[in-house]
Amino acid sequence: MRKFKEMKIGEDVSFFAVVEALQKRYTPNKSAYYSISLSDGEATTDARVWDTALIEGNNVTTGKVYHFTAHINEYASKKQFVINAVREVLEGEVDMKQFIKSAPLSEENLRTGIKEYIKKIENETLRKLVIHIINTISKEYFTYPGAMSMHHNYASGLAYHTYSMLRLAEKLLEIYPGMNSDLLYSGVLLHDIGKVRELSGINTPTYTVEGNLLGHIVMGIQMISVAAAELRVEESEEVLTLLHLISSHHGELEFGSPKEPAMMEAYALHLVDLTDSKLAAISPAVSRSEKGQLTEPINSLGRKGLYVPKL
Amino acid sequence: MRKFKEMKIGEDVSFFAVVEALQKRYTPNKSAYYSISLSDGEATTDARVWDTALIEGNNVTTGKVYHFTAHINEYASKKQFVINAVREVLEGEVDMKQFIKSAPLSEENLRTGIKEYIKKIENETLRKLVIHIINTISKEYFTYPGAMSMHHNYASGLAYHTYSMLRLAEKLLEIYPGMNSDLLYSGVLLHDIGKVRELSGINTPTYTVEGNLLGHIVMGIQMISVAAAELRVEESEEVLTLLHLISSHHGELEFGSPKEPAMMEAYALHLVDLTDSKLAAISPAVSRSEKGQLTEPINSLGRKGLYVPKL
Amino acid sequence: MRKFKEMKIGEDVSFFAVVEALQKRYTPNKSAYYSISLSDGEATTDARVWDTALIEGNNVTTGKVYHFTAHINEYASKKQFVINAVREVLEGEVDMKQFIKSAPLSEENLRTGIKEYIKKIENETLRKLVIHIINTISKEYFTYPGAMSMHHNYASGLAYHTYSMLRLAEKLLEIYPGMNSDLLYSGVLLHDIGKVRELSGINTPTYTVEGNLLGHIVMGIQMISVAAAELRVEESEEVLTLLHLISSHHGELEFGSPKEPAMMEAYALHLVDLTDSKLAAISPAVSRSEKGQLTEPINSLGRKGLYVPKL
Amino acid sequence: MRKFKEMKIGEDVSFFAVVEALQKRYTPNKSAYYSISLSDGEATTDARVWDTALIEGNNVTTGKVYHFTAHINEYASKKQFVINAVREVLEGEVDMKQFIKSAPLSEENLRTGIKEYIKKIENETLRKLVIHIINTISKEYFTYPGAMSMHHNYASGLAYHTYSMLRLAEKLLEIYPGMNSDLLYSGVLLHDIGKVRELSGINTPTYTVEGNLLGHIVMGIQMISVAAAELRVEESEEVLTLLHLISSHHGELEFGSPKEPAMMEAYALHLVDLTDSKLAAISPAVSRSEKGQLTEPINSLGRKGLYVPKL
Amino acid sequence: MRKFKEMKIGEDVSFFAVVEALQKRYTPNKSAYYSISLSDGEATTDARVWDTALIEGNNVTTGKVYHFTAHINEYASKKQFVINAVREVLEGEVDMKQFIKSAPLSEENLRTGIKEYIKKIENETLRKLVIHIINTISKEYFTYPGAMSMHHNYASGLAYHTYSMLRLAEKLLEIYPGMNSDLLYSGVLLHDIGKVRELSGINTPTYTVEGNLLGHIVMGIQMISVAAAELRVEESEEVLTLLHLISSHHGELEFGSPKEPAMMEAYALHLVDLTDSKLAAISPAVSRSEKGQLTEPINSLGRKGLYVPKL
Amino acid sequence: MRKFKEMKIGEDVSFFAVVEALQKRYTPNKSAYYSISLSDGEATTDARVWDTALIEGNNVTTGKVYHFTAHINEYASKKQFVINAVREVLEGEVDMKQFIKSAPLSEENLRTGIKEYIKKIENETLRKLVIHIINTISKEYFTYPGAMSMHHNYASGLAYHTYSMLRLAEKLLEIYPGMNSDLLYSGVLLHDIGKVRELSGINTPTYTVEGNLLGHIVMGIQMISVAAAELRVEESEEVLTLLHLISSHHGELEFGSPKEPAMMEAYALHLVDLTDSKLAAISPAVSRSEKGQLTEPINSLGRKGLYVPKL
Repeated sequence: MRKFKEMKIGEDVSFFAVVEALQKRYTPNKSAYYSISLSDGEATTDARVWDTALIEGNNVTTGKVYHFTAHINEYASKKQFVINAVREVLEGEVDMKQFIKSAPLSEENLRTGIKEYIKKIENETLRKLVIHIINTISKEYFTYPGAMSMHHNYASGLAYHTYSMLRLAEKLLEIYPGMNSDLLYSGVLLHDIGKVRELSGINTPTYTVEGNLLGHIVMGIQMISVAAAELRVEESEEVLTLLHLISSHHGELEFGSPKEPAMMEAYALHLVDLTDSKLAAISPAVSRSEKGQLTEPINSLGRKGLYVPKL
Repeated sequence: MRKFKEMKIGEDVSFFAVVEALQKRYTPNKSAYYSISLSDGEATTDARVWDTALIEGNNVTTGKVYHFTAHINEYASKKQFVINAVREVLEGEVDMKQFIKSAPLSEENLRTGIKEYIKKIENETLRKLVIHIINTISKEYFTYPGAMSMHHNYASGLAYHTYSMLRLAEKLLEIYPGMNSDLLYSGVLLHDIGKVRELSGINTPTYTVEGNLLGHIVMGIQMISVAAAELRVEESEEVLTLLHLISSHHGELEFGSPKEPAMMEAYALHLVDLTDSKLAAISPAVSRSEKGQLTEPINSLGRKGLYVPKL
Repeated sequence: MRKFKEMKIGEDVSFFAVVEALQKRYTPNKSAYYSISLSDGEATTDARVWDTALIEGNNVTTGKVYHFTAHINEYASKKQFVINAVREVLEGEVDMKQFIKSAPLSEENLRTGIKEYIKKIENETLRKLVIHIINTISKEYFTYPGAMSMHHNYASGLAYHTYSMLRLAEKLLEIYPGMNSDLLYSGVLLHDIGKVRELSGINTPTYTVEGNLLGHIVMGIQMISVAAAELRVEESEEVLTLLHLISSHHGELEFGSPKEPAMMEAYALHLVDLTDSKLAAISPAVSRSEKGQLTEPINSLGRKGLYVPKL
Repeated sequence: MRKFKEMKIGEDVSFFAVVEALQKRYTPNKSAYYSISLSDGEATTDARVWDTALIEGNNVTTGKVYHFTAHINEYASKKQFVINAVREVLEGEVDMKQFIKSAPLSEENLRTGIKEYIKKIENETLRKLVIHIINTISKEYFTYPGAMSMHHNYASGLAYHTYSMLRLAEKLLEIYPGMNSDLLYSGVLLHDIGKVRELSGINTPTYTVEGNLLGHIVMGIQMISVAAAELRVEESEEVLTLLHLISSHHGELEFGSPKEPAMMEAYALHLVDLTDSKLAAISPAVSRSEKGQLTEPINSLGRKGLYVPKL
Repeated sequence: MRKFKEMKIGEDVSFFAVVEALQKRYTPNKSAYYSISLSDGEATTDARVWDTALIEGNNVTTGKVYHFTAHINEYASKKQFVINAVREVLEGEVDMKQFIKSAPLSEENLRTGIKEYIKKIENETLRKLVIHIINTISKEYFTYPGAMSMHHNYASGLAYHTYSMLRLAEKLLEIYPGMNSDLLYSGVLLHDIGKVRELSGINTPTYTVEGNLLGHIVMGIQMISVAAAELRVEESEEVLTLLHLISSHHGELEFGSPKEPAMMEAYALHLVDLTDSKLAAISPAVSRSEKGQLTEPINSLGRKGLYVPKL
Repeated sequence: MRKFKEMKIGEDVSFFAVVEALQKRYTPNKSAYYSISLSDGEATTDARVWDTALIEGNNVTTGKVYHFTAHINEYASKKQFVINAVREVLEGEVDMKQFIKSAPLSEENLRTGIKEYIKKIENETLRKLVIHIINTISKEYFTYPGAMSMHHNYASGLAYHTYSMLRLAEKLLEIYPGMNSDLLYSGVLLHDIGKVRELSGINTPTYTVEGNLLGHIVMGIQMISVAAAELRVEESEEVLTLLHLISSHHGELEFGSPKEPAMMEAYALHLVDLTDSKLAAISPAVSRSEKGQLTEPINSLGRKGLYVPKL
């Protein structure tokens, strides 16, 4: 299949693409159109759909792949795709995998990056526990999304979330003395492991039955408790404080943490998780927007769009 | 030591007793006195202290044992102790154990009563799990208090709380069809097991370090997870649903449950726990009060006193 | 009209029935169908509607009676109705009354059961007041629903709610000493009497104008105040404490109680009301569900469905 | 007894006075003194107490009468009392009644003013009901305070609160068309009648038992319900809407109203009550303060003091 | 164009009118109709639409102008318009301006009325500041709406809101001593000036970009700060206290005030704003309703309709 | 004066020191002692006070300087000061300035560090505005504390807070694409400038009158608005978005922000401020604590102490 980058201004083209974003807009004289963002699995391009019936009639939704026919205009000296036909994909017509949304870093790079941080853990109990648990669920740990629709909702989202948090945690350890870095890194590495059982899989995940009944915090406690018993370290200070970090990482009872943070490392873990979950959800939306406009609605901000300054 | 029941109206007596309740009151002509409730470890008696300095000067506080000198008046054809001297107990002067506040039922009776309900559990996985866990912590399970100061704050309070809840749960199973009784009984039996590690002991307990960092819900999840792994039933529907019951028994996130109830048995467990924790704390306070008065302040109601109707 | 129990596997049948529950589901290969629950006014049966247009085209809604044509399959050795036609009922074609949803106990049984509890009230003032008020509104008291859509939303729901609460209250009186049983039973018997004026009638009730302006708590206070004045007991401790029970039975100001519970009997009344309103709404939904599935959405739980364990 | 207005600059005087306000302040060079506000039952004067031991040693508290010895300085061409001795009043030494804090208007004036508004009510049902109820409790209605410590906590505070609200309501009726003035005036006149039974008396009132168990909203509903039954108007639109006004006048459930306002008159009543309760509590505190300073702490604002601008 | 007042009972008429209110109702025998309120820009009339398809098929919405054909019946001795045709307006067919909803007082009258209050301000700093700011934005100040959809959402709504608040403030100054009237009037006059930059214009306004990013409180602070710097009074007590009034006029942090009221004038401003925003939104809805009915849903009350008493 | 580092184990010493922290603790056999943290203005040392009367009798409080007499023991091969006398400092006896608590970095270093970040701002409008404002208040900007008692409550705390936030912001810009770094750095640099007018000075600051009436957010808006008008850039996108950042940096209305964040840079500023305010307050408390113990109560966490893990 030809990729976007090979298509030229002036051409009439047809291609498969996944709809990443979709927004109804209005021209100065109030006629409606759609601004959509399409991905060929490699690059993203913006497109205009002047005939709103193409979108509404085909019930086009984000996250799905369609076949598009378009003319490529020049607009502000850039390519602008104008869509003139849309249809659903026929069974077997295209390999869906190439359109799966993935983390900005490859699984390979995430494995390497995360392992660098595991190596920094000098405390043997913690390092063994972290390695033991991640090995048990290694496939899922590096490929699962971070959430259903809130943030990091793409393949390897969980690992990307973990890796960004490790980088942030490293900075906090540099600025604020007083924390045990082994414990903080272990907490970051394991804080969301329950998600590999809370979510049903990599693509368009749903909550599993046990996800609904227990949630990832309780399942994380369960997984660490059993692993600690297997390694015979269940009575250690390491496991006690690590379980506290898992239990308290949502920061407040009303967000599902059975305990509020009661250690400096627990506050740091919570703040790093909060910061990454907000900014990692906002960043791609802003990058896809034009200056002086609102971004697409962002799920984790209650579907609020943010203003992108004209600077 | 002579017990209250052997003391007669008209006598001058002296004795050791623990102060169970203490309230400053006023006579119709506004002079202050103390109404106190004393226990000889067997029976409770009310006493008047007309000289408030006896209480305030000795810094008398509830839960402690003192030596009292009193005259026994007749009041409304009942004995009324009028205290005329109070002093602290000397080291070794008295065996404190006899004054420890205990549940209304003996440990022996609670063991028997609770075992009757364990026998009702027909599901083998649940019954084995319940027995395995209770056996491991049997001593604490039947002697620990239910809380530090809120409700069931006395020896065997935890078991008494559990037993009353089992009786209530039995009634709910009778009135409301749809629940699995094995699961509900198991949930009641294990819902507070984490307390044997959250509290430091039987008398004047404090929170342990792990109690502060994890709390009894997380520790209960931990204990059941490890026990289930040992019995090789960790993947069973029984363990999944039981863990849900433990996780959700506080009813709402803001009360420390990482999940809200999502099964009928979980609602029943929460309601039975709520009902018992309120009424078991209120009942002795009302029993110690006079009609037409407010009870002593009740800790679990935010130190509110309740009105006792003149009926 | 032939009843469900007379219909046999293999037959093609047609009948009138009220739709009690309705849920869109999906087969493993993702094709939609409806699982519906039908009542012939006597028994309930589950049915499948493979052609979703039958439901959506006729705008089928719960609580209404329709004429159905079906074939009865055998499924898991039980009857399974497969609907192949639905139509609205013609005016006068069928007697709607036979489909009115009723309490699990008959009005007759409820009258008998409730009277047993009234007889237990030994305090003359309370007994006379209870009898006087119930007699005045006897027809409505034993036939009205307990609510519009939340719980006990069926004929005699109010009386059934009252009767279950009396049974629960009896258990509480047994377990927790300190309460005046006459007062607690009177409180249960009268706590919702305002509902006979808050709701417009037995079937598909709406709120009356005075229901909207005053609500059943204020109207209950009004009814008891006037009755007490008629019986010349308005200054009694009985009326004062009974009015407190009515005023506080929602437990918290934000749920519409002008006072929070301030007596042990008021706490008991609130807890019994809370327990019955939750479990009586959950119980039939669970009974209608299959194990391992979610129940239909339950109104009084914010339309949440509950998981039914596979035990 | 000589009154403040007869005392002159330069004199040494002694007198009885009630302490209306009391505030510890600091001179520019940080030495502490007390600024107190004294009332001879007629006028109020400010005084300085340079020797803080006079206040603290005698445990001087607001609301109580003391005997003072003072020298009168000239300060900013006004009299300034400098206290040099304070002592408690001996039993029988002075008639306490003359120091009772009263509303800014006399009971006589309030009776006249309020009656003017009753005369404006043209609807016969409402006017009769208002007159019937006020006549029954006429003594208390015109002498009781409006609250224990929040606002209008002085003799005739209830009537003064009612009268100010009537004046404000009159203005709202002028500005905002759509309201029935008879209903709004009746609502204002009766909204707090329950207070004559909620509070124990005129001076240093406490809550009565029924005040604690029912509160003034429920008692108001009770009083109006019984009066309406006596006048045989209990089924009227007038009584229904009046009861709604009483029930909803706190504006929100969490402030003890069993219903939120659902009529324009109910919103007006709530807003007028809110405005008067805030400003009538603030006004005297501001009047007693100096510009550029904070007022004494104001009870109904959570003990916050307000800044008085230097304008 | 003929106006409503010239049309007579019995006539068949056609006209342009803006739909001010629209409500689906039901006849006693349950057939649906629409009750609509029409304005010819001068007077308002009620109309019935028995054929609901006229409304629903044309997607008739409030705030828009349509062409209507009607017959005028006599009903309860008043004119009742029965609509039998509706169509959209053709481009240029009618001058839309004559249908713009306006404040109950003309811009002229509002200018005069507001200037009377400005004249009352004796403090020179405040008077100059008020005049300087209002002059700068005079056009918008007297023509802008007060809000998008909540209250005062019509031409000159901002000025009408300001004027009503001035009248109310005058009454408060009369009843409650202690306030500086210059400051309170200035606060009322300037409290919402930021709205002339928060809203996009007079008709069907939207929020501007700076309205979304800053809001009218911050923009008011900005405008007053700059004006004060220009007049070289930025360090004055007048500007400090005025900025406090602007900052705190929403009364609570959660309503967007960066400070809570901390002066008596600030409380008064908040209460006057609250009262006017509630009652000015309710008043026209009640006036358009029939007695014994609910009003149309009122935006600023969360779309709640109010009951209009039959008095 | 001899400094701590010159004092040796075994010596009897006397010295002046400021009390930085103070905590009552208990030996294993329950006898009370005080653990205090003393600063000679250069280094901090821990001390034990076995005679609690020394502390309680002299009413020793943190933040004040006292004269101490002590013996230096060896404990765990470190110096341990055992205090045996404490007295207040006589007027003029010691130069208090040397004990003023300061930021971990010197004013000099902070000036240099902050200027490095100002240089990174390429946008001329923003850079000029930042420099103009900081120059105007340069003395206070680099010497003021960050708050009264919550966090950064020491000399140059404001600058240290700003500098740490700049470092964190730099990391966020590296990890999350989409932000304008000039705007984010400007926002960090100016977000708390209002504090130089909200607080009364460097040592033991209190809130100024304008601090109480306006708060630092409003004063920051005021200062930027006036500066922007002076530089004639008040209509620029730079000033609009910068004012949004200042307005929203507390993140939620209830924390005093008149607007919630509506741009990516605003979220980043809020998260960086939140993270630094929590961790900068926790870090020194943890550093002063022993492993396995709770820290001193931390003001900004509601006086909660945190557990320091034994790792």
